[in-house]
Amino acid sequence: MVTGFKSPDKLRANDVALIGLMSDGNSSFLAGAATAPVTIRQALHSGSSNLGSELGVDLDHNPRFVDTGDRQIANVTESFLTIETHINEILARGALPLVLGGDHAITYPVMRAMCKANGPLSILHFDAHPDLYDDYDGNPFSHASPFARIMEQGLARRLVQVGIRTLNQHQREQVTRFGVEVHEMKTLDLASIGRDFDGPVYISFDMDALDPACAPGVSHHEPGGLSVREVLDVIQRLSCRIVGADIVEYNPRRDINDMTAMVAAKLVKEIAGKMLQSNA
Amino acid sequence: MVTGFKSPDKLRANDVALIGLMSDGNSSFLAGAATAPVTIRQALHSGSSNLGSELGVDLDHNPRFVDTGDRQIANVTESFLTIETHINEILARGALPLVLGGDHAITYPVMRAMCKANGPLSILHFDAHPDLYDDYDGNPFSHASPFARIMEQGLARRLVQVGIRTLNQHQREQVTRFGVEVHEMKTLDLASIGRDFDGPVYISFDMDALDPACAPGVSHHEPGGLSVREVLDVIQRLSCRIVGADIVEYNPRRDINDMTAMVAAKLVKEIAGKMLQSNA
Amino acid sequence: MVTGFKSPDKLRANDVALIGLMSDGNSSFLAGAATAPVTIRQALHSGSSNLGSELGVDLDHNPRFVDTGDRQIANVTESFLTIETHINEILARGALPLVLGGDHAITYPVMRAMCKANGPLSILHFDAHPDLYDDYDGNPFSHASPFARIMEQGLARRLVQVGIRTLNQHQREQVTRFGVEVHEMKTLDLASIGRDFDGPVYISFDMDALDPACAPGVSHHEPGGLSVREVLDVIQRLSCRIVGADIVEYNPRRDINDMTAMVAAKLVKEIAGKMLQSNA
Amino acid sequence: MVTGFKSPDKLRANDVALIGLMSDGNSSFLAGAATAPVTIRQALHSGSSNLGSELGVDLDHNPRFVDTGDRQIANVTESFLTIETHINEILARGALPLVLGGDHAITYPVMRAMCKANGPLSILHFDAHPDLYDDYDGNPFSHASPFARIMEQGLARRLVQVGIRTLNQHQREQVTRFGVEVHEMKTLDLASIGRDFDGPVYISFDMDALDPACAPGVSHHEPGGLSVREVLDVIQRLSCRIVGADIVEYNPRRDINDMTAMVAAKLVKEIAGKMLQSNA
Amino acid sequence: MVTGFKSPDKLRANDVALIGLMSDGNSSFLAGAATAPVTIRQALHSGSSNLGSELGVDLDHNPRFVDTGDRQIANVTESFLTIETHINEILARGALPLVLGGDHAITYPVMRAMCKANGPLSILHFDAHPDLYDDYDGNPFSHASPFARIMEQGLARRLVQVGIRTLNQHQREQVTRFGVEVHEMKTLDLASIGRDFDGPVYISFDMDALDPACAPGVSHHEPGGLSVREVLDVIQRLSCRIVGADIVEYNPRRDINDMTAMVAAKLVKEIAGKMLQSNA
Amino acid sequence: MVTGFKSPDKLRANDVALIGLMSDGNSSFLAGAATAPVTIRQALHSGSSNLGSELGVDLDHNPRFVDTGDRQIANVTESFLTIETHINEILARGALPLVLGGDHAITYPVMRAMCKANGPLSILHFDAHPDLYDDYDGNPFSHASPFARIMEQGLARRLVQVGIRTLNQHQREQVTRFGVEVHEMKTLDLASIGRDFDGPVYISFDMDALDPACAPGVSHHEPGGLSVREVLDVIQRLSCRIVGADIVEYNPRRDINDMTAMVAAKLVKEIAGKMLQSNA
Repeated sequence: MVTGFKSPDKLRANDVALIGLMSDGNSSFLAGAATAPVTIRQALHSGSSNLGSELGVDLDHNPRFVDTGDRQIANVTESFLTIETHINEILARGALPLVLGGDHAITYPVMRAMCKANGPLSILHFDAHPDLYDDYDGNPFSHASPFARIMEQGLARRLVQVGIRTLNQHQREQVTRFGVEVHEMKTLDLASIGRDFDGPVYISFDMDALDPACAPGVSHHEPGGLSVREVLDVIQRLSCRIVGADIVEYNPRRDINDMTAMVAAKLVKEIAGKMLQSNA
Repeated sequence: MVTGFKSPDKLRANDVALIGLMSDGNSSFLAGAATAPVTIRQALHSGSSNLGSELGVDLDHNPRFVDTGDRQIANVTESFLTIETHINEILARGALPLVLGGDHAITYPVMRAMCKANGPLSILHFDAHPDLYDDYDGNPFSHASPFARIMEQGLARRLVQVGIRTLNQHQREQVTRFGVEVHEMKTLDLASIGRDFDGPVYISFDMDALDPACAPGVSHHEPGGLSVREVLDVIQRLSCRIVGADIVEYNPRRDINDMTAMVAAKLVKEIAGKMLQSNA
Repeated sequence: MVTGFKSPDKLRANDVALIGLMSDGNSSFLAGAATAPVTIRQALHSGSSNLGSELGVDLDHNPRFVDTGDRQIANVTESFLTIETHINEILARGALPLVLGGDHAITYPVMRAMCKANGPLSILHFDAHPDLYDDYDGNPFSHASPFARIMEQGLARRLVQVGIRTLNQHQREQVTRFGVEVHEMKTLDLASIGRDFDGPVYISFDMDALDPACAPGVSHHEPGGLSVREVLDVIQRLSCRIVGADIVEYNPRRDINDMTAMVAAKLVKEIAGKMLQSNA
Repeated sequence: MVTGFKSPDKLRANDVALIGLMSDGNSSFLAGAATAPVTIRQALHSGSSNLGSELGVDLDHNPRFVDTGDRQIANVTESFLTIETHINEILARGALPLVLGGDHAITYPVMRAMCKANGPLSILHFDAHPDLYDDYDGNPFSHASPFARIMEQGLARRLVQVGIRTLNQHQREQVTRFGVEVHEMKTLDLASIGRDFDGPVYISFDMDALDPACAPGVSHHEPGGLSVREVLDVIQRLSCRIVGADIVEYNPRRDINDMTAMVAAKLVKEIAGKMLQSNA
Repeated sequence: MVTGFKSPDKLRANDVALIGLMSDGNSSFLAGAATAPVTIRQALHSGSSNLGSELGVDLDHNPRFVDTGDRQIANVTESFLTIETHINEILARGALPLVLGGDHAITYPVMRAMCKANGPLSILHFDAHPDLYDDYDGNPFSHASPFARIMEQGLARRLVQVGIRTLNQHQREQVTRFGVEVHEMKTLDLASIGRDFDGPVYISFDMDALDPACAPGVSHHEPGGLSVREVLDVIQRLSCRIVGADIVEYNPRRDINDMTAMVAAKLVKEIAGKMLQSNA
Repeated sequence: MVTGFKSPDKLRANDVALIGLMSDGNSSFLAGAATAPVTIRQALHSGSSNLGSELGVDLDHNPRFVDTGDRQIANVTESFLTIETHINEILARGALPLVLGGDHAITYPVMRAMCKANGPLSILHFDAHPDLYDDYDGNPFSHASPFARIMEQGLARRLVQVGIRTLNQHQREQVTRFGVEVHEMKTLDLASIGRDFDGPVYISFDMDALDPACAPGVSHHEPGGLSVREVLDVIQRLSCRIVGADIVEYNPRRDINDMTAMVAAKLVKEIAGKMLQSNA
């Protein structure tokens, strides 16, 4: 066991538990997301900014913001069980996981654990892609498919997607089949998003939801995305309880001057702040 | 003749014909745009995205989206005649050219061919610069002058410019002289643009219309430009027929991580989609 | 004395006097801002753009736009006195200083000179950070503290801050203590800013007010900032007299393809244009 | 036909004919070599150097150094026949081809044409890899296999390889089978190389023969390679007749500041100079 | 426990056990080395090269080359004990550790474990710096001091340093005090190095021993270093038994196009090959 | 007068006086060298290395190593007189100038001052280019011509050039005309260089003498150059008195990760060390 980070068995109820999942074995295009948690953590503590969220929650020496370190996920076959077990450990203490990916494939096992502990949740999903492929190049657990698995197995009460700009025919059919609520970029009304959640919410944030100008460090550049401020506006306006979150698909090997790592660190601060505030 | 691409004589009416013009001999500041068509095509087929446009037209294996390959334009003196001939070949089949530059100088010979086939068209011109110089450093065919030539020779019915932010005294006089409709960035009302076209339209898209944050791979950085989403909104809202288009001034040697190539590829998808839809 | 630049004693009343202060000895995180003035000037004259401002003031061969060159500030201890002396020389001729930093620490000695010549001014301060620390790591003159010094000594009539997104508890207390008018990003109403200035104004522009996507060349990346166009809108709408300005914290060592240098050069053109116009 | 370059039918005996083959469809790892010829030519004419070779042959306005432009090779299936035809056209005039790749797969069809015109030649092959795979991932024409094809078909009298540092068991067997003369980096005696050629020689230069420090713009980094000066020494010392050459596997998308393009351009000058000198 | 990597308790005698230590808390200048093991492993398996060493040992599916994964070392205070324990686990099975750092501070606890298992070893130490500081900025365990600790505690029989080019007065005194055998770059006779080892040897390889042209991805650029080939020559000529090794101070955040990661991966192949061969 | 640096009138006999000349107005190809002195000084003091030379002279707090700061040279017409005056000031005190350029054009006025104080000196000139053009594009004072001017005016006793690899016909004639001793790269015998100087020597070091792999931050990449170690060997072996030196043509805008700045800083240390030692 690595020291310096806190072991999950030291967690208390409603702590926000940061956990990194170093995994990119299910990426279709470019590997690299595995080192993301280490790099995001370096950005978070880099000294070029402070640890306060804009809404006034300070993470600095905050006893409720607990870093449980990273887990190296090398064996793709067993990785989902491993991930589910890691999240179960956090949830067993009543803590709230804030997961740093790794690629988006991890959200499926994370949601399995979340659902077991909380029942089906509403998911607020930021992404350029709906990630609803029945399978991708024959892999049903690829990073293009997690939400197909989640919806099939009834792990979510609602799936609300924001930032989508790559729907093709197959994915449109999946949207209909699963009753996904899609807010495409081409007709986006940001002010309306997140107003109507009536139960606890899980946030799944794919960094490519953002415009590549703000977040170049992703494997799949899809121009025409959200600005950082638009995302912060949605998150800061949420009035529901946030019980878990992930920030995925940051790829340090594609980043420029750590620009995207700083964005991911900003999201850690704002999402963790919201989680602490809404579970106070 | 290069194989693998389709020869222009295989084109059918209303096909969208992609054609690259590898030319940067008329650039005033930095060469490099010559390899742009090859790099944009690589981005288009890179596997990091799909070939669907946001409005639902899929270019993947679409028989009406035909790639006719690139032409190397080395001799500046004869280049305009050469370019005009290439476009004539496409138009002779009733196809719709989608040209990848090359620098902006190519738009003049392209419009000569377009005008011969269609009569004077309305031009929707995205750019940071009006490109209306009578001549630039003595070169009347430089990439700063194509629209002066086009307007003098009556090749356009209307010239509507969007994104302009570098008007000086001489160019303001040219605007007045030619009756150009200029939408400057400093007073831009995006919603109004393109609503009133009443005939077929040609789109000339200079990549530096975009803010350099979105499109760093251009020779002339002019901060304060359009976002990719703003551009897509204008294009997607067009209700007129689009009969031709160019995407110019992408400079791969200035690009970062192929960010700008991906933007150009996105524009290919959305403009080609609109061309196919509006000529169905 | 270096020739080619004009000596301050050649200045006339209401000339805009460009002056670079090569200083980064008070930076807490990353050095590099010292060479900023040289690089910004290269961008300004690079030939990839012209010297016209969007509002129609042309700086090219403009006799009222005078470059007085750069000053190398190596000795931190004596630097503030040195800087104050340099600005005094400009003000003694009735000219209007447009200062290129250097880090933000320079604004304190610049304002000492400005206040001596003009009395307390209103300051329009663009920044991600309020820079109101009582001291930073024990340094009361660090680049995180200039506005604490300015407010304590009554050097400003009003301090209006725009773009702020890093307020912590200590800085919130300083805001209250000094009566600073803070426009945080999270609730920003851009249209309202700068409408109500009733006397002469000094603009202090920290490049990190901008989103890092537009201005990556800064030491402190704070995502979720202003776009270049939003900044230009505020500046172009100002109807008050601008009697001085600084553009600080550009760090060429962090820049990408001179993108941020071009933004700083654009700001020089628009701010200088406004200064000339409002003091005509 | 592109103008500005000379058509092959204008070539005369013993002219050196530069020709670019824009092809990377047979690359196993990273595409990108297709734009290499355009970028190398830009480096050659960039103005940052002159066109003189170190041995005193000046290519500037030299009537015997003829640029025939680039060919876009898009269809992998037909590409080899196409390439062979292009080289045949040059050889039919008695000219000496200097080919810019493109990936290394092109050397096989080039050698087919060379052999038809000259009979089997000695090949001086610079490379990190022997490129003798019977097939690579099932592709017998991949860029890892050209010399297996060349040796099987008796297209070379001798194959002398320099810079090799990746021999595995299969390739060692191929070396024995084909009687290849391998000069591995680990035991390299540079002074001995090329002393004993007794007939005309073809030079095939894979840019990854060089150490990645000198030539980072290649798809396959194999540290521990040759320095540029070591390569120039070997080439400058050759006393045989050089009747053809290729420079392949430069990948502009991996290059840094055009460093590798400048190296390729230097090789063009030195190899072309040697070809002109040895065929005077 | 992470699966996919092998647990140390599966090791057998004379296996080479790869282990990453993600640690950079003792770096004086720039953090970043923590993610090095993940990035080096990606380079090793990247598909741009094969897994064969130049001397003919193939690591591909080699049952004696075992990857035990990475350990995250977050708590500097307890890190040395943690590291020593990790290495003890490997040595307890009779296996041979090949450690990927992390910064050079790790070599001290590694040598404590090595010495306990093997008695004092000869160390072949490649570095630009002697790393013999009594302490650095008050930290006796900094990455500038490991060999002072090792020599004081008698953990090495001989310390042979190669590539040194930064000796100052203090370090010269330490050299004398500890009887270190220093081969400075300024008088280097490479052929003589390593000829006279008469017992088992540990190799400690700091990436900055190499010239920054070959290995830019290090925190401390010290020009005038070794080439990759010179290093390979020394290693390949060793005739002693190699019982352990480390490769440290690779900093992915400073790297360019993964150039240095590929060099580190090459060193893994050649050192592991030599370890397997010399312990067969 | 800038404080922190010492004023030239504080210099004593045989002090080494560092002085930066921020000038690139005579560059033919790419500007950028003007900021070189600031960046080299930052590298020298960066904390990633120490200030000791390899031969044992420590510059740290060394009273004989005096930094007189930088001079901004904006007016090309008057620049030579200005430069000559600056160097005269240093020489008037008996100090030894170590000049940081700026482009190579500065060496001509520096040598005018040197010759006036010392009589004609031997010059040891490291460069890829002989810089002997009678004029370049009509400019007799361009950075391609300084040694033509120096030789014409008899300012040097001997001119020994090392690293040359771009001689064309005109320059060969100049070599003969002026009796320049040229050591071309293609036949270089390093051990012989500098053995036979019998009087005081001035070193003029153009960074492009080095191979671009070691020193990418130059305007003119000329592959096949010297390694850093080869240069250090020549300098360290010199047994004559060094009375002045310049290090020119470093271009920070072309540099990668400050690699070339670190090389220039290393040269400052080794050349200053040699100057101090040989004038002790």
